[in-house]
Amino acid sequence: MGRVNDHYLKLKAGYLFPEIGRRVRAFEAANPNAKVIRLGIGDVTEPMPPAIAAAMHAAVDEMARRETFRGYGPEQGYDFLREKIAEHDFRSRGAEVAADEIFVSDGCKCDSGNFLDVLATGANVTAVTDPVYPVYVDTNVMAGNTGVANERGEFERIVYLPATVANGFSPAVPGRHVDVIYLCSPNNPTGAVLTREALTRWVDYARREGALILFDAAYEAFITDPAIPHSIYEIPGARDVAVELRSFSKTAGFTGTRCAFTVVTKTLMGKTADGQEVQLHALWTRRHTTKFNGVSYVVQRGAEAVYGTEGQAQVRALIYFYLGNAEVIRERLSAVGLEVHGGVNAPYVWIATPEGGDGRRAESWAFFDRLLAEANVVVTPGSGFGAAGEGFVRISAFNSRANVEEATRRIVAMLGRA
Amino acid sequence: MGRVNDHYLKLKAGYLFPEIGRRVRAFEAANPNAKVIRLGIGDVTEPMPPAIAAAMHAAVDEMARRETFRGYGPEQGYDFLREKIAEHDFRSRGAEVAADEIFVSDGCKCDSGNFLDVLATGANVTAVTDPVYPVYVDTNVMAGNTGVANERGEFERIVYLPATVANGFSPAVPGRHVDVIYLCSPNNPTGAVLTREALTRWVDYARREGALILFDAAYEAFITDPAIPHSIYEIPGARDVAVELRSFSKTAGFTGTRCAFTVVTKTLMGKTADGQEVQLHALWTRRHTTKFNGVSYVVQRGAEAVYGTEGQAQVRALIYFYLGNAEVIRERLSAVGLEVHGGVNAPYVWIATPEGGDGRRAESWAFFDRLLAEANVVVTPGSGFGAAGEGFVRISAFNSRANVEEATRRIVAMLGRA
Repeated sequence: MGRVNDHYLKLKAGYLFPEIGRRVRAFEAANPNAKVIRLGIGDVTEPMPPAIAAAMHAAVDEMARRETFRGYGPEQGYDFLREKIAEHDFRSRGAEVAADEIFVSDGCKCDSGNFLDVLATGANVTAVTDPVYPVYVDTNVMAGNTGVANERGEFERIVYLPATVANGFSPAVPGRHVDVIYLCSPNNPTGAVLTREALTRWVDYARREGALILFDAAYEAFITDPAIPHSIYEIPGARDVAVELRSFSKTAGFTGTRCAFTVVTKTLMGKTADGQEVQLHALWTRRHTTKFNGVSYVVQRGAEAVYGTEGQAQVRALIYFYLGNAEVIRERLSAVGLEVHGGVNAPYVWIATPEGGDGRRAESWAFFDRLLAEANVVVTPGSGFGAAGEGFVRISAFNSRANVEEATRRIVAMLGRA
Repeated sequence: MGRVNDHYLKLKAGYLFPEIGRRVRAFEAANPNAKVIRLGIGDVTEPMPPAIAAAMHAAVDEMARRETFRGYGPEQGYDFLREKIAEHDFRSRGAEVAADEIFVSDGCKCDSGNFLDVLATGANVTAVTDPVYPVYVDTNVMAGNTGVANERGEFERIVYLPATVANGFSPAVPGRHVDVIYLCSPNNPTGAVLTREALTRWVDYARREGALILFDAAYEAFITDPAIPHSIYEIPGARDVAVELRSFSKTAGFTGTRCAFTVVTKTLMGKTADGQEVQLHALWTRRHTTKFNGVSYVVQRGAEAVYGTEGQAQVRALIYFYLGNAEVIRERLSAVGLEVHGGVNAPYVWIATPEGGDGRRAESWAFFDRLLAEANVVVTPGSGFGAAGEGFVRISAFNSRANVEEATRRIVAMLGRA
């Protein structure tokens, strides 16, 4: 019998969202008449914008005619898409990123895990914020970069940087050396954004320490404050220390359509065990062309349409619609005394749990269960994102306005009954 | 500077197909009027069948309406597709595979590499046939499962099983213990198929030795001989020892549309370092849900249409069209004295190179270069698939009939001039 990757056994039984799904299904089975509203998993609900649908229809028609049929595309993505990304998402904001530094992929989640392929196993010290998107930690555990977890769920050889009310959910750079740092702004789950000053401190730290920043900007489209950087490459020197992950999932409603991209600059270096410098762009190119075969042509044409005049207007309308939902959640829940964070430049609202009946703030899962049972609203327990998320829940703004209003009305009513 | 995965540096500079691409681009730049015909990379050329295009159009329309919009789908694939696969590809052939043992993915190539994630690094002895699809070896090198390569390009800790004219390109089971075995039938590159008897010997070997078989059946749709198994699960006992990789790429013209699937049965076990038995299905589920986010809904609806009455007829017509091309290649090249293998239950024809002018058979790359320069035909050099592929080239049947006829006519003329 072949030997398996034992590191998987260090993981807890379930990834956070399957566990939520299990509890919701159990509740619905026991309460078939309950009208459950889902503000848990950050999944979009509004239809694909018409400009994108039109582009995908046209691409299907191309595939159905011999003269315009396309077989294997370039693994890194078609130039028509890479060039629009480079121009619109980077150069127009003064960030120096070339089209051939962009790798189109099927998901930000996938690439955040896949990128570990090109890094050494067990040789780097990794830092994450706490709370944190669980995939960063889980994929490091699976890759063998950590020890086992303690009773708080914290893994050996991961440096956790608490993001708290006290530091505005923007932790200071570590007082020690680390090799790899995951940053996410706008943040999942807290909804906080990193300011230009905070990002500059991170870039300076990485340059000083020779660290690699994996910058997850999947929610950048929700930034409305003009002072907040959309890309880490807006910070001088970032090209030499950072990889950036982007996605069309939340920007353009692509969670079920699947398209994202990863930027690996040509000036980003790593070192081998014997101290030789190696271009990460070259390693990632080898990984991407050997273990990936490109995103569906039809989907890439849909993503391209995001950058057209109509596409931009329609996508912006989507974003403002979800931001309007976030505002409804923020206003109504803060009006009844809940401590509310995030939800301004981000689609997530981060709520401190109220008192749980024993004079102390309720635990995340307890408040999750209560919201499900009494308000029939699904949120995400903050502790699922890390020890420092205990005492919070994440509420997603991805839903119809009617559902968001009904959900907040029910939560307000529930709290009034307590 | 973070430490990189040094194992990548053991790989040769280029993956086979990029190197071919480089040589072809250089030739075309120097000879802009040459009409180059590509029978190299195995990429389909005929349009998407109408039933598939219709299903994708309908799915795009669903995505564009709020009532039918779909966000994140199940990472393992939608039940509508998994159930049709289980019924049509397995149960109808007497192979016991359940829908929840099927993991829909974006490519067979991707999954053949990704599967190493759930196996231990450096702890298993791996066997491949030679010649072999390069991704099996390259992904093992990248994962750290091998030593360095010798001057023949063979890596330490890989057991190579030569597939030769003498053994009918169906190597015997090894005389030693191995833990992981890659088999591909119909074979890429030789076009040979494994008989029921040969497959039974492999399954028996794997059961006896406790080995895992990774069975790549990406070309199963090309099997016309009713005696040849389409799935390894047609062999009794295979459920306990084999993973099967399948793809819509060649079956239904999906190389640019991207859909495939991997079967991991629930009775397939591996062991941990301390001898504990673990279900590979559970590990792969964790991997697939953490590092993958499902295939595009629109694409899955396209794949589902492959199993409809119209879809089946249209896809079968495609397959027979390409098999007709293979027959043209086989007949015309064997008529002028070339030694021709494969191309009967497979879209690849495996040709022994002719005498190279010095009384010996030409080397693969030399014959590749000659075919490109003198006949303007691109093939794939056999040595790119392994040391035992030296002295062969692979010709792909994926092209229009007119191009296949023109390419063989030019090759025949070239050989006549020698």
